[in-house]
Amino acid sequence: MHGVILDRFPDAKVIDLAHEIPAQWPPEAGFWVSRSYRYFPHGTVHLAIVDPGVGTERDILIVDYDHHYFMAPDNGLLARLLDTADTADVFKLDPGALQRLGIETPSMTFHGRDIFAPIAAELAAGRTTPAAIGIATSEWIPAWLDEPTVVPGKVSGIVVTVDTFGNLISNIDAQMIESFEHPVAHIAGRAIEMQTTYGRVQPGDYLALINSFGVVEIARAESNAAVGLSTDRGAPIVVTDGTTT
Amino acid sequence: MHGVILDRFPDAKVIDLAHEIPAQWPPEAGFWVSRSYRYFPHGTVHLAIVDPGVGTERDILIVDYDHHYFMAPDNGLLARLLDTADTADVFKLDPGALQRLGIETPSMTFHGRDIFAPIAAELAAGRTTPAAIGIATSEWIPAWLDEPTVVPGKVSGIVVTVDTFGNLISNIDAQMIESFEHPVAHIAGRAIEMQTTYGRVQPGDYLALINSFGVVEIARAESNAAVGLSTDRGAPIVVTDGTTT
Amino acid sequence: MHGVILDRFPDAKVIDLAHEIPAQWPPEAGFWVSRSYRYFPHGTVHLAIVDPGVGTERDILIVDYDHHYFMAPDNGLLARLLDTADTADVFKLDPGALQRLGIETPSMTFHGRDIFAPIAAELAAGRTTPAAIGIATSEWIPAWLDEPTVVPGKVSGIVVTVDTFGNLISNIDAQMIESFEHPVAHIAGRAIEMQTTYGRVQPGDYLALINSFGVVEIARAESNAAVGLSTDRGAPIVVTDGTTT
Repeated sequence: MHGVILDRFPDAKVIDLAHEIPAQWPPEAGFWVSRSYRYFPHGTVHLAIVDPGVGTERDILIVDYDHHYFMAPDNGLLARLLDTADTADVFKLDPGALQRLGIETPSMTFHGRDIFAPIAAELAAGRTTPAAIGIATSEWIPAWLDEPTVVPGKVSGIVVTVDTFGNLISNIDAQMIESFEHPVAHIAGRAIEMQTTYGRVQPGDYLALINSFGVVEIARAESNAAVGLSTDRGAPIVVTDGTTT
Repeated sequence: MHGVILDRFPDAKVIDLAHEIPAQWPPEAGFWVSRSYRYFPHGTVHLAIVDPGVGTERDILIVDYDHHYFMAPDNGLLARLLDTADTADVFKLDPGALQRLGIETPSMTFHGRDIFAPIAAELAAGRTTPAAIGIATSEWIPAWLDEPTVVPGKVSGIVVTVDTFGNLISNIDAQMIESFEHPVAHIAGRAIEMQTTYGRVQPGDYLALINSFGVVEIARAESNAAVGLSTDRGAPIVVTDGTTT
Repeated sequence: MHGVILDRFPDAKVIDLAHEIPAQWPPEAGFWVSRSYRYFPHGTVHLAIVDPGVGTERDILIVDYDHHYFMAPDNGLLARLLDTADTADVFKLDPGALQRLGIETPSMTFHGRDIFAPIAAELAAGRTTPAAIGIATSEWIPAWLDEPTVVPGKVSGIVVTVDTFGNLISNIDAQMIESFEHPVAHIAGRAIEMQTTYGRVQPGDYLALINSFGVVEIARAESNAAVGLSTDRGAPIVVTDGTTT
């Protein structure tokens, strides 16, 4: 994909956002795209291709939102971002546009290289726009994960991903618990106090915090929370106000 | 190596083609180079350094072929590409050229950084050519793997590599089976039907297909074929026409 | 971090030096920075952020040395480099400089993205200097590892890191043993002869050598020394002259 992009747009800067995104599970890729895009320059094209349906009839979404472009298979990956992005202009790739861009016989199995990469290069180079190659739409495949359930004094969410440090990252946004006087996270049978940063507890102790992407995270100081709690993505996590469960 | 390249040629674009190539087994690196180079811009320098013989008397090959440059130790890595590349101009690095390029005391153990990287930078910058720093040759160390055996109705090959999804990638080229009416792949005791793409079978089922690099691949829909079949690189794979074995 | 850097300095070249540095153990990151920086162009900004104390009161060091810049938490990571760098100009980041650079509300947990990356971009772009944003200092947190112990005919060190080939890399510098007539490395109960390169022994045999970063390394020809010796970072290693122990 890097080669194809540079072949069409030699001045492109191509960054691999993450090397460890699991195949087959679009929510994790969608989480990282939606939580990190704002740290990139305006005009960046964000490609996210977790694509179990490659070669079948699934559509490709092209999105113009908040001075950034996004491309992904229409399989729920971008749904959480789009559900809350009131000003997003969303398009489905017009198959007829491929020939106009000189993409004539893509493989059936590597659309990342054969469709996404050349289109991203054209968008980044400013030689085309989402509207020129897509059909406007207001429908997309829904997100795979429910949003957290919010009742007074309690938010129930899920672990979306585990980072390379073994920190468990949830889909519970800071805003959902900002009114709590004494937030406590519950996961894997433990009640864990919220802290402001990793260094505020003793090595080996667990802590919960609002991480740098604005969501509740469970960490273990100078250690690996996922291993210590035998917990992985998909695990339920609840934050209560006080110790009420 | 990135640092050395940019020090000599600040405008270089340096791409890591793959992060998981196994050490000590040149055929896999050679497979990826030969199957992916055409997706990079003309003039790209392709370095492939799986080099068990670093520091011994092995030669370094520099190749000018199909508007691309290639560099690798002469240990069989590039042999499969060169065996079929009629128009390739192949050179062995002239040790005397090192001093002319200001490479005076390379380490004995990291020729990637101390020899390959500076030469690649000079080639990419257009300040030298393979002919200027090499001695023309028509001999190289042969490939480590035999080409597939082809008899009427049956092609016998080998698994060259396993990708990050657990797909088993063979050295059987699409052209070898294009005349088959009903191709069936045989591997690890199973007979597996050819499909056009991953999405055409149920999750968990095995399938065979011509992948995006033009060779026969065994996959498992939304799962990991290598784990499921307890199979890894080096395994034999046979494609027959019909179910004849 | 790549995104933040390119947002401030679009012409930046951002290189990931290593993908497998362990969290929580600054000495390994410090080893790679100190041993590899000289292969990068003058003016390079080297960021090394192994940072168990993120969000606590630890300082951030900014160093101007040998035509390169260095940034790291003040936790011992850079100590070995600084202890021997007589001409280094060392500064602690002035918190007041953050606002002048438009860094107003960094997160408590991801200073790499929110503090290090924007400052690195400003330094690389030539828009600020260490002196302009730091307070000169001659004190820093000491190194976590002792320097090797040197007595006549014997140097006792430690394995600092294991590379992706399973080679065990020590902190014993070539200069410490250059007077030895017949250097022998002792590790994990074995006495291992020094060689000049990997190819000088039979496959499967162990060897010791001065590696391409100028330190003693234990390798296993065409195999993995760390696995074969059941040894990892932190292991003691002794080099003697002759077989004296």
